[in-house]
Amino acid sequence: MESFADTLFESSSHLIAAIVQDATSEQVLMMAWMNREAFLLTVETNKVTYWSRSRNEIWVKGATSGHTQELVSMALDCDGDALLLRVNQTGAACHTGEVTCFHRPITVGDVL
Amino acid sequence: MESFADTLFESSSHLIAAIVQDATSEQVLMMAWMNREAFLLTVETNKVTYWSRSRNEIWVKGATSGHTQELVSMALDCDGDALLLRVNQTGAACHTGEVTCFHRPITVGDVL
Repeated sequence: MESFADTLFESSSHLIAAIVQDATSEQVLMMAWMNREAFLLTVETNKVTYWSRSRNEIWVKGATSGHTQELVSMALDCDGDALLLRVNQTGAACHTGEVTCFHRPITVGDVL
Repeated sequence: MESFADTLFESSSHLIAAIVQDATSEQVLMMAWMNREAFLLTVETNKVTYWSRSRNEIWVKGATSGHTQELVSMALDCDGDALLLRVNQTGAACHTGEVTCFHRPITVGDVL
């Protein structure tokens, strides 16, 4: 029987967007990518793990910074191309030190 | 001077992920894609507008269903490849009738 992860990820290089929300504050913290291996490691270890597209490697969030993400729950979207992860975030989610990666507000005046 | 949208979207076909959060409930509702035109239309009209990758066309959310998204605020992430939109959602965000597209919980038992 095909495993859930094999059904979700059609190949080992297939990437799915992972949107991360703080389970306490409800803030959206970041978006990153998972391949099948990162997805399985996340479920097995409960530590959120991504695929780094720039470094081409598995990336355990917080492995160097200590700013880990403990998985609380996970949901798939209707068309199976995005995951929503609710996490307990230790420290700042963003490498800049900001709480969330979405820390650059865009105003109408910036655009029009 | 290069416009903000031209800086953000390197070409007319460059797509940026748009993560949508309900400004009242804080629920993450969906993820879709914007090209430069969809981004500009969103800011100009205050009605969230995407680029449909499957239909290859501009898609004003709710144009047929009436389930529109009024833009409340927008923020860019640290590396400029994702947008977080906070919206006032009319009706269900998901085409299935669910409040959010992320309505398929994944449990450890599903995966391991």
